[in-house]
Amino acid sequence: MDDEAAARVALLQGASAAAARVFTVLLTRGPISRIGIAKATGLSQAAVTKTVTPLVAAGLVDDRLGTQRAGQPGRPVSPIAVIPDALTAIGVKINVDEVIAVATDLRTGVLADERAPLRDRDPDAVVDAVAAIIATLETALGPAAARVAGIGVAVSGDVEAATGTVRESGLMGWTGVDLGERLHARLDAPVVVENDVRALTIGEHWFGIGLGTDSFAIVTIGRGIGSGLHVNGEVVEGAYGVAGEIGHLPLAAPDRICACGRRGCVEAVAASAAIADAVSKAHGRPVGIEEAARLAHDGDPAAAGAFGEAAAVIGTAIASLVNLAGPELVIIGGEGVADFDLFDAPLHAAFREHAFGAAGRCRIAVRPHTFEDWARGAAAAAIRTLVR
Amino acid sequence: MDDEAAARVALLQGASAAAARVFTVLLTRGPISRIGIAKATGLSQAAVTKTVTPLVAAGLVDDRLGTQRAGQPGRPVSPIAVIPDALTAIGVKINVDEVIAVATDLRTGVLADERAPLRDRDPDAVVDAVAAIIATLETALGPAAARVAGIGVAVSGDVEAATGTVRESGLMGWTGVDLGERLHARLDAPVVVENDVRALTIGEHWFGIGLGTDSFAIVTIGRGIGSGLHVNGEVVEGAYGVAGEIGHLPLAAPDRICACGRRGCVEAVAASAAIADAVSKAHGRPVGIEEAARLAHDGDPAAAGAFGEAAAVIGTAIASLVNLAGPELVIIGGEGVADFDLFDAPLHAAFREHAFGAAGRCRIAVRPHTFEDWARGAAAAAIRTLVR
Repeated sequence: MDDEAAARVALLQGASAAAARVFTVLLTRGPISRIGIAKATGLSQAAVTKTVTPLVAAGLVDDRLGTQRAGQPGRPVSPIAVIPDALTAIGVKINVDEVIAVATDLRTGVLADERAPLRDRDPDAVVDAVAAIIATLETALGPAAARVAGIGVAVSGDVEAATGTVRESGLMGWTGVDLGERLHARLDAPVVVENDVRALTIGEHWFGIGLGTDSFAIVTIGRGIGSGLHVNGEVVEGAYGVAGEIGHLPLAAPDRICACGRRGCVEAVAASAAIADAVSKAHGRPVGIEEAARLAHDGDPAAAGAFGEAAAVIGTAIASLVNLAGPELVIIGGEGVADFDLFDAPLHAAFREHAFGAAGRCRIAVRPHTFEDWARGAAAAAIRTLVR
Repeated sequence: MDDEAAARVALLQGASAAAARVFTVLLTRGPISRIGIAKATGLSQAAVTKTVTPLVAAGLVDDRLGTQRAGQPGRPVSPIAVIPDALTAIGVKINVDEVIAVATDLRTGVLADERAPLRDRDPDAVVDAVAAIIATLETALGPAAARVAGIGVAVSGDVEAATGTVRESGLMGWTGVDLGERLHARLDAPVVVENDVRALTIGEHWFGIGLGTDSFAIVTIGRGIGSGLHVNGEVVEGAYGVAGEIGHLPLAAPDRICACGRRGCVEAVAASAAIADAVSKAHGRPVGIEEAARLAHDGDPAAAGAFGEAAAVIGTAIASLVNLAGPELVIIGGEGVADFDLFDAPLHAAFREHAFGAAGRCRIAVRPHTFEDWARGAAAAAIRTLVR
């Protein structure tokens, strides 16, 4: 990091709670007036000005955007905003067979992106692949590479964000992998490791669809079924690092055994592998998830039935989440949404059947997140640690 | 309300966001030093002093508790605290067959309590009963009756707290009852109507077991199965007023029909009436829940089986809540805990079976809330509205 960027990071990390709140408001709602910041933070305008001055001096915030008249007559309002290029973040999404990385500005605007195949899921090989893709990305970045303030790494499974330990990842076949420490030893910038769906939720909360809503959940379908919940102003982290395990709600019949070993998990019916297994069994030969989707589209009853059963249990799971937490909006994402037409009707029917009272007013939206969006979520997780 | 109390209420309700935060910290964590308040709120010490001064002048806060030396050498620290008797709150819990009311100080310390039978569930009769018990309570209160700043009313069901409308209450047999408006027309102080479990959660969060924990859930068992969740600094309210409907997670077999009409709800197996029904069926005669518990204690296999089945589905529901929200602690309450020995082992076994990874570290505690505790929760809900 160059001296200028280091000074910016030092300022943010030494910030008082009030200053951190001001910067967060600027980051997520700017350009915004001093009055707007005061309202959003509960601080006096004098306190806001006192907080903004050093941010401006450090080149993190711009208070000379010109003046613009508010709708009402009176004094002109001069808005303040974060300078997105003041610092760079890197986000990496680790998939089973691929790593995807983006470099972003402070508002997760993408500056550069890279992807590389992952041939080996061994932690050493994955650390090598992450370090290599970041090196490639930094070369592509040019001068912005000297401003990398944090690296976020997102991986499926039970991740303890505080230590960066992946306690359990079924998809990666990992138990107790100290990914954060291994990456820390290899990389120059601070590293934060997050559960991938939680990182996506952080990204949507700070810079995406979550900005306009008080509460929302993301449910991802595909290889795994996961969820992230944002409520009361923050993403739910779980007191012991685990939350959002919608894929392991025991909503399926007890004779369906999950890859995690438990009975009746949602994933035991609704994960891609479970759908493919059901179709394979019906056809007496191995059928992959892509062929299963093709068969279902062509009207094959076994394939359509397997997707329908998966969709019903996902809809039931979403109703369960909604009955407990009552979010305003549920966003369905994940690679499974590529074939969402196969899920649509039975998913909504099951949701309507089990949603309780007014909780059923919760909107359900489908959003095809690209893997780049997931990597941006990881970058958002890294940016968030700068101001906490 | 007397003039002094009215001035206190006006001061709190006109408070800035910062002043409301300061008062909340004083209410829930006092006695506390100015430095402690500044730390907890992110305000400067000067801003804290500016906020505290009018609270002291109005008689809401005491800053003359004497000085006490902090552990370290240096200037003595003088703690500040809310004066509990500065205002009075009333909390009313409506049960199917009884109303329970308490008058409390600002920290939900009970000043007086009353209970009265409820012979009729018709909304008009219930409003009469609530008005009557409050009148009795105010007579008992003496001078503190002139300081009643708010009344909280807790009732089972889907309650829209913003309007005080009970949209659906299975236990009361109500749909769309404008309880808040009806009570408003009859009572002198502001009224807030809350779902009963949510009110209990607010009480535990502000003044109870929730004070020491970052996140917790309450699960109540008995006539109904409900839950309340406190996470990210607040009770989860639900975007559409519904949350915590753990009794309507579809975790039971689909042939179990719930009183709400849905299939496979937790309550269809685990509510008192469902347990009593199962025992009645096995014995070929009507058996109430109290006799069912006696039979189970005496080793009757049908009764023990019905409690065991209920316990297993409750444990599974708690695991589902924990997998999604990852709280630090789950408190089991409700009138059903009187016979908790009948639930204990199968409930914990089902929880262990379905809790995912580190989420399973969540502690489960049993706390026999009295109906007075529920009424105190309603009072806490009323107190909370003073500073929001």
